[in-house]
Amino acid sequence: PASKLPQVGTSIFSVMSQLAQTHGAINLSQGFPDFSCPPELADLVGTYTRNGFNQYAPMTGVAKLRENISRKTQLLYGVAPNPETEITVTSGATEALFCAIAAVVRPGDEVLVIEPAYDSYVPAILLNGGQPVFIPLSFPDYQIDWDLVKTRITPKTRLLLLNSPHNPTGATLSAEDLNNLADIIRDTNIFLIGDEVYEHMVYDGHLHQSLLRRPELAYRSFIISSFGKTYHATGWKVGYCVAPPALTQEFRKIHQYLTFSTITPVQYALTDYLENTEHYLNLPTFYEQKRNLFCSLMDSSRFRIIPSAGTYFQLAHYGHITDEPDVAFARRLTQEIGVAAIPVSVFYHNNQDHKVLRFCFAKNEDTLQQAAEKLCAL
Amino acid sequence: PASKLPQVGTSIFSVMSQLAQTHGAINLSQGFPDFSCPPELADLVGTYTRNGFNQYAPMTGVAKLRENISRKTQLLYGVAPNPETEITVTSGATEALFCAIAAVVRPGDEVLVIEPAYDSYVPAILLNGGQPVFIPLSFPDYQIDWDLVKTRITPKTRLLLLNSPHNPTGATLSAEDLNNLADIIRDTNIFLIGDEVYEHMVYDGHLHQSLLRRPELAYRSFIISSFGKTYHATGWKVGYCVAPPALTQEFRKIHQYLTFSTITPVQYALTDYLENTEHYLNLPTFYEQKRNLFCSLMDSSRFRIIPSAGTYFQLAHYGHITDEPDVAFARRLTQEIGVAAIPVSVFYHNNQDHKVLRFCFAKNEDTLQQAAEKLCAL
Ligand SMILES: CSCCC(=O)C(=O)O
Ligand SMILES: CSCCC(=O)C(=O)O
Repeated sequence: PASKLPQVGTSIFSVMSQLAQTHGAINLSQGFPDFSCPPELADLVGTYTRNGFNQYAPMTGVAKLRENISRKTQLLYGVAPNPETEITVTSGATEALFCAIAAVVRPGDEVLVIEPAYDSYVPAILLNGGQPVFIPLSFPDYQIDWDLVKTRITPKTRLLLLNSPHNPTGATLSAEDLNNLADIIRDTNIFLIGDEVYEHMVYDGHLHQSLLRRPELAYRSFIISSFGKTYHATGWKVGYCVAPPALTQEFRKIHQYLTFSTITPVQYALTDYLENTEHYLNLPTFYEQKRNLFCSLMDSSRFRIIPSAGTYFQLAHYGHITDEPDVAFARRLTQEIGVAAIPVSVFYHNNQDHKVLRFCFAKNEDTLQQAAEKLCAL
Repeated sequence: PASKLPQVGTSIFSVMSQLAQTHGAINLSQGFPDFSCPPELADLVGTYTRNGFNQYAPMTGVAKLRENISRKTQLLYGVAPNPETEITVTSGATEALFCAIAAVVRPGDEVLVIEPAYDSYVPAILLNGGQPVFIPLSFPDYQIDWDLVKTRITPKTRLLLLNSPHNPTGATLSAEDLNNLADIIRDTNIFLIGDEVYEHMVYDGHLHQSLLRRPELAYRSFIISSFGKTYHATGWKVGYCVAPPALTQEFRKIHQYLTFSTITPVQYALTDYLENTEHYLNLPTFYEQKRNLFCSLMDSSRFRIIPSAGTYFQLAHYGHITDEPDVAFARRLTQEIGVAAIPVSVFYHNNQDHKVLRFCFAKNEDTLQQAAEKLCAL
C-alpha cells in the first residue's frame, strides 16, 4: 500500500542499538541505563504478579497509583492534581504523547515543534492530520528564541510541544522561558504539551521548571512523565499524563482505544514504591555524578563538551576534528572505535548537521570509563 | 476544546465493572478471568524482572518471542510467519488493532464493520479519518450475510474488520464463510483485519478458522491475537500482529510512535512459557467445560440461551421476560439481582436492542454457580 508515513524508516535508536550489538560496541546511543531498577521494586513486581494482580487495570490507571502521583507532584511542584479527573496512567510516555496530540490536533492544524525534536512527535502530528511548524533552537547553546516562536504563531496554531529537560540536547527551560511563553500565548488558544520525562534529571542546583508550577500555563497543558526513566526500567513502558479535567477527558477518549490500560502488576508495584520519596529526590545527584564523571573523562578527548544541564544525555561537538556528516561519523565511531552514539542531525526535519553526537551517560562507572577511554583514543 | 470523538463516553466495560463493584455484584460483564495466570508463568515474570530484564525490548518485540509465536502458528494453522518481517509484538491487542487501522485507513476511506462490533474499532477508524460502514450480523443466529457485505463494497472500501471468535456474540466463522469472503474480495484491493484474540476458545470440536490458514486471504490481512486472553492475564496487555512484510512494515511505522515497545520482562516470560504447548492446546476444553457448566446452570433460569460457539462470552436473550431496554435491564440486574452483564446494544452504532445480555464465563465454578443461582431467581 502507499505508505501513510512514507518518510519514516526504522528509528535511529533501533538502528544504532542494533549496530552496537553487531560490532560489540559500548552502547551509549539509545537512552537506557545499563543498571536495573531498585531490587525492592523488582520484588514488588514479582510479588504482585504471583499474587494474582494480573487482570485489566482501570482504564485511567490504578487509583492508588494516581493518588501517589498526585502526592509526588505536590511535593515537587506544589500542586496536587486531582487523581480522578487530572491524571491518566499510560503504556509509556510515548503513548501519552500520542494521546495528547491526537486529543487536540485536527486536520489542518499547525503544531509548533522545537528542533531538535524527539522522533515520535512529527509522525504523531502527521497521523492526526496536523502540520508541523519547525522552530530551531539556537546553536550552539540550544535556547528557545521566543521572538521567533512568536512569528510562527498563526490562527491555525493549535499546539506547542515543549520538552524540558530536553532530549537530545540536555537543555532545560528557565523560569524566564516560562514567563516568555506565558506572554506569547496569553491571547491565543494554543494548547501545550510538556514532555517532562527527564523531570528528575536537572543538575547544578537548578529546579525543574515544570509547567505544573505555572497555573497560567498548566490549565492548557498536557504534562507527561515516565516511570521508566525514573526507576531505571525503560522497558516497563509505564508513563502518565497530568492535564486539567477537560483535556484529560479528551485524552482518555484516545487512550481508551489506543491501549485501554497499562500493565497491572507493575502499576501496583510502582504505587508502593512511590511512597519512597528518597529514590526520586536523590536522582538529580545520582545522575549529576555520572554526568560529571563522563565529562571529566572526556576532558582528555578531542571532543568539545559543554556539560549537560539535564536528562541523561551529553552532547559532544566534533566539527573541529572531521568534516564527516554526523550519521557517518556515528557509524564509524561504533564500528572502529567501539562506542555507539546518536547523531543529533536525525532530530531535525531537514537533517541539519551541526556535527554533534549524543551520548547516554545512564551507565555504570565502568562502562563510562571504558567508553571514554575508547573515545579519547580518537 | 471541541471533542475529536464527541460521541465517546466511558466504555461500557469500565461502567459496568464500576457498577458491579459499587453494588457488590458478581462481575460477569467486562471480559476477564477471576483466576490468574499459571503460577510458573507468574514466577517467570518475577525472575526476569529481578534478573534485570527491564530495559527497552526491541521495537518489533523480543526476537525469541516472535520465533515462538511463529512456531505456535505453524503448529496450529500450518504456516510459520517470518519472525523478522511478519510478526510484531504490541502493548495489547487493542494497540495492534489501532496500528493496523492507522496503517491503511486514509481520510475518506470506507471501512466495513460487522455489527455488533468491539468498541475500539469505530473510534480508531474515525481518528484516522475513515468512514465506518456498518453491516449487521443476522439475528438471532449472528451470521454474516455475505451478499449484504458485497452490496456495501464501493471503490472507497479500504478495509474489512473480521472478528472470530466473535465478541460479544460468540459466533465463529466457518470455512464456508472464508470461501465467501475470498470470492467477494478477489477483485478488490480491500485489506482485512482478523481480530482473533479468542483463537483458543472454539468449542464443540470445531477448528478456529484463522485467516492464517488461507494464503489467498492472509496476504492482505493483519491477524491479531492476545496473550492476555490465552494466559488469563488480561492486565498484562501483550498482544501481537501477524501480517505480510509490506503490511508489517507500515504497521511498525505506527507502532514505533504509538508505544515503541512492550514490557520486557513479560515478553521474556511469555517466550519461555510458549514452549509449553499444552496450556493453549488444552484451552478449548478448559473453557468449553465452563461454558457447559454455565449453560446447564442457566437452564433453570428464564433466560433463553444458545450455547456460545467461541470466546469466553455467553449471550442470554430476555425479551420474553421484560420489555426493558438492555442497558436498563443490565443495570437493574447488577443492582437488584447482583450479577453484572454487558448489554449487547452498546456494540451497535445505532444501539439496536435485541434484548440480549452478554455474560463472561471465564470464572471459577463457584462464581458461575453463585451467579447462575442469582440469575435463576429472576
Ligand atoms: C524509545 S527508544 C529511545 C529512547 C530515548 O528516549 C532516546 O534514546 O532518546
Ligand atoms: C478492554 S476491557 C474489555 C474487555 C473485553 O474485551 C470485553 O469485555 O469485551
